Amino acid sequence: MTSARPVTQHESGGEGGSVLTAAAIAQLTGGRLEGDEHASVSSVASLDRAQAGQLSFCASPKYASQLAGTLASVVLVAPDVARAASGGGTATRVVVEKPHDALVSLLPRLYRSPAAEPGIHPTAVIGRGAQIGDGVSIGPFVHVGDGARIGARSVLDAHVVVGTGARLGEECQLRPSVTLYPGAEVGNRVVIHSGAVIGSDGFGYVFRDGRHEKIPHVGRCVIEDDVEIGAGTTIDRGSIDDTVIGAGTKIDNLVQVAHNVRIGRLCMIVSQAGISGSTRIEDGVVIGGQAGLQGHHTIGKGARIGGQSGVFGDVPAGESWSGYPARPHREALRAQATLFRLSAMLKRIEQLLASFGQKDQ
Amino acid sequence: MTSARPVTQHESGGEGGSVLTAAAIAQLTGGRLEGDEHASVSSVASLDRAQAGQLSFCASPKYASQLAGTLASVVLVAPDVARAASGGGTATRVVVEKPHDALVSLLPRLYRSPAAEPGIHPTAVIGRGAQIGDGVSIGPFVHVGDGARIGARSVLDAHVVVGTGARLGEECQLRPSVTLYPGAEVGNRVVIHSGAVIGSDGFGYVFRDGRHEKIPHVGRCVIEDDVEIGAGTTIDRGSIDDTVIGAGTKIDNLVQVAHNVRIGRLCMIVSQAGISGSTRIEDGVVIGGQAGLQGHHTIGKGARIGGQSGVFGDVPAGESWSGYPARPHREALRAQATLFRLSAMLKRIEQLLASFGQKDQ
Amino acid sequence: MTSARPVTQHESGGEGGSVLTAAAIAQLTGGRLEGDEHASVSSVASLDRAQAGQLSFCASPKYASQLAGTLASVVLVAPDVARAASGGGTATRVVVEKPHDALVSLLPRLYRSPAAEPGIHPTAVIGRGAQIGDGVSIGPFVHVGDGARIGARSVLDAHVVVGTGARLGEECQLRPSVTLYPGAEVGNRVVIHSGAVIGSDGFGYVFRDGRHEKIPHVGRCVIEDDVEIGAGTTIDRGSIDDTVIGAGTKIDNLVQVAHNVRIGRLCMIVSQAGISGSTRIEDGVVIGGQAGLQGHHTIGKGARIGGQSGVFGDVPAGESWSGYPARPHREALRAQATLFRLSAMLKRIEQLLASFGQKDQ
Repeated sequence: MTSARPVTQHESGGEGGSVLTAAAIAQLTGGRLEGDEHASVSSVASLDRAQAGQLSFCASPKYASQLAGTLASVVLVAPDVARAASGGGTATRVVVEKPHDALVSLLPRLYRSPAAEPGIHPTAVIGRGAQIGDGVSIGPFVHVGDGARIGARSVLDAHVVVGTGARLGEECQLRPSVTLYPGAEVGNRVVIHSGAVIGSDGFGYVFRDGRHEKIPHVGRCVIEDDVEIGAGTTIDRGSIDDTVIGAGTKIDNLVQVAHNVRIGRLCMIVSQAGISGSTRIEDGVVIGGQAGLQGHHTIGKGARIGGQSGVFGDVPAGESWSGYPARPHREALRAQATLFRLSAMLKRIEQLLASFGQKDQ
Repeated sequence: MTSARPVTQHESGGEGGSVLTAAAIAQLTGGRLEGDEHASVSSVASLDRAQAGQLSFCASPKYASQLAGTLASVVLVAPDVARAASGGGTATRVVVEKPHDALVSLLPRLYRSPAAEPGIHPTAVIGRGAQIGDGVSIGPFVHVGDGARIGARSVLDAHVVVGTGARLGEECQLRPSVTLYPGAEVGNRVVIHSGAVIGSDGFGYVFRDGRHEKIPHVGRCVIEDDVEIGAGTTIDRGSIDDTVIGAGTKIDNLVQVAHNVRIGRLCMIVSQAGISGSTRIEDGVVIGGQAGLQGHHTIGKGARIGGQSGVFGDVPAGESWSGYPARPHREALRAQATLFRLSAMLKRIEQLLASFGQKDQ
Repeated sequence: MTSARPVTQHESGGEGGSVLTAAAIAQLTGGRLEGDEHASVSSVASLDRAQAGQLSFCASPKYASQLAGTLASVVLVAPDVARAASGGGTATRVVVEKPHDALVSLLPRLYRSPAAEPGIHPTAVIGRGAQIGDGVSIGPFVHVGDGARIGARSVLDAHVVVGTGARLGEECQLRPSVTLYPGAEVGNRVVIHSGAVIGSDGFGYVFRDGRHEKIPHVGRCVIEDDVEIGAGTTIDRGSIDDTVIGAGTKIDNLVQVAHNVRIGRLCMIVSQAGISGSTRIEDGVVIGGQAGLQGHHTIGKGARIGGQSGVFGDVPAGESWSGYPARPHREALRAQATLFRLSAMLKRIEQLLASFGQKDQ
């Protein structure tokens, strides 16, 4: 049975931060306070799991019934939910138009990111001629190669490898075991998660004399500002041209980006998507999980590619495509529906053809 | 040409262990001995590759012809195979109902897992306030963060990173370069293979002021007891709620588990499957390789999802679904068969439609 | 605005090397010189990005218009391009049959691979009885396990782990954070990219007594000569039999190779492909990106599997298959075309069936 004692930061799994009163929450979110203005919270949880001292939210009438039973001290509530569940429960409410957005805005006040201490761990190995900016934090067993440059206030967690001559901008965060190959160029405020590999050789060979001869890869791998790259993702360097990830683009886990791919600004690439060589992806494109893009095509500005799609040609700007092979989304849905419809009609079609004396060709 | 000398443990690739006689094998497996009870083995191999001193097995009459030629000293043989191939070959036989199961039972006697020596390698870096249980083995270049807890008899191979405040249970095995993000919680007897990443930030952003603003992730990443996680697999922490992998569930290589996913007990998730955010997977579910699950749906208890399926909705308990978009397996198979059948009939259907004066719409 | 000063090696992103004159390029490639034989280059770039001092190429009339504007000092040009764009631009030309092949041949002269200095970094940990060949280069934080063998002139970058008793041949290159599990066997001139995992336990369990009991994996993981393995790729060891990657085969990033798989010589496996257990892949097979192969089937010599295909059976030698479920490529294309054709005819088919009084079954 759950007691009503306040949870500690340890139990919540977060890194802990300050305490917010319901009055402060109402003021910060522009919301309307209903209940005890002195109710205070120090962490967040979902309605059904929250305990005393926690903040929760309810954005949909679908979950309004949970309001009565929640142990949360303060709940951010949408106006229609507040009306539907008036009087239910003991939690203090702050009524706001968009509870989830309000919660996201409050999170940085409740959860401080763990502040990495500036300095170079004594176990780290820093190469000849490497330049380390002010306030950089370098963790245990990091290897910064010869001639590499690390911008100010960047954080390199344990086991990060920055190859010879690679460049990393300011205020970047490289999680444990990230590898930047020699020559990789990473902008400012880039976040790269554990195990991601930036600037590996592309998959290029010519078959001659009875073997696959490797094409030397001499193009660059450029990650622009404000990019985030997920765990285990691999981004190859260019063969002769460059591989470029545009500013503000976010890439999920286990994504493959091949050589010479150019991705524009503010794209979203969901996990396990694969982008073949020399593909051009314009600004604002969204690519669903496990989608695969054949090489040498262009995905136009703002296009959306559905999860698991197989794209074998250009996709016009602004369009939504899906399926295998990918087609405009409505057309793909209609084709899928047709297939199941025809499956049910197959015998009748065969009988009809037979009754007209037509035979298989 | 292969000589009949006994192979050494080095040649077999295994880690070596003790020696078993045919008599001991018969006794341990409850099998019927046919041949030399003193024949002895110290390792295993397939029928066609086994040498003297090795144990093999033959479970299917399909491979009975290999029995005559095998150099194995002892072979576990199914009853119908024994009948079909009476007198063939020189190997001593132990006839058992399920030769493969019998072999699996014998393996731990022939191959000892390499015993990790307890102790902390002098190169390891242990953070402030970290608690290390009795008999723990910590390898070279391991980094255990501040306040982390490592349960008794757990083994951390080289380059493992345990983030600040993360908790690892007893008798766990973390293979080289596993990363636990800060706050990750791992139960007892959990095995995690190289390069796997536990507790990374989920892929969550809100688009405002012309950029993708990151949603802070403060939920937990909880791995329950007896879970095994494959190489390169990534499991994100929850955003506000938790990500949970239930007890006894096994996950293969390069699988992606997104934020807030809850996987039940005793599930099997095959390699390269991708599970989108907030999916609920109940107990005993099997998910095939490269299958993709859209977020926010529920896969009912004991359901089976075929390889490469694309699941875009709930799947009822106990059902087998496959295809893209996934449907009940029989329906999916029928639809696929229909497509190829109709492909052969297309011209006749077009002619029939034309003969009735119907035109494209 | 781009100045005409020669770019430095830093700007080109490459590692730098020697200088080649146009005359030397013509001689080395057997090409016909058109222009200044003294024009010299020290690096390469694409036509539109090249600057003075760089070599470029133009293989297709499609890009001939870029010839006039390029700042490259020397351009390798195909004969038909040279005719189509006579007189355009100031770059010296070398006319060759296959400009791209010629460029690939020249790259090693312009870009020296960074020579790893032989020696063992003082931070590396070398196990008892490990054998290290002549001229080996071992980087920071490498761990070579007890009894492992490293062949002459091999390079182990930072954080590489070579497990107990594993063997690595001569002139191999292991990029940062590669893990070889205990007992893995790697041939000569093998290149393995960051984060790849060789020889991890396969995904094999028997369900008994209410839990998934792990099958001990005692088979080998053998990587033959001249194989290249991409970043993040995982290759499991065999359960009882071996997993084998044949000589000269190239594997891209994030590929999964399960236990007991045998891949022949000179195959090409593109990124994110998944190969299930006990699959046999014969020599010279090409497997497209994200393709998935069900276990226990055989892909015949020289067969080609299209990207994202789902292969659920044997594929005959020499054939091209694609689709889900995979079929001969022409058949798969026809089926896909049929589906979209029928989608447009669906209402007419339904009307026709209705007019003949046939009802759904």
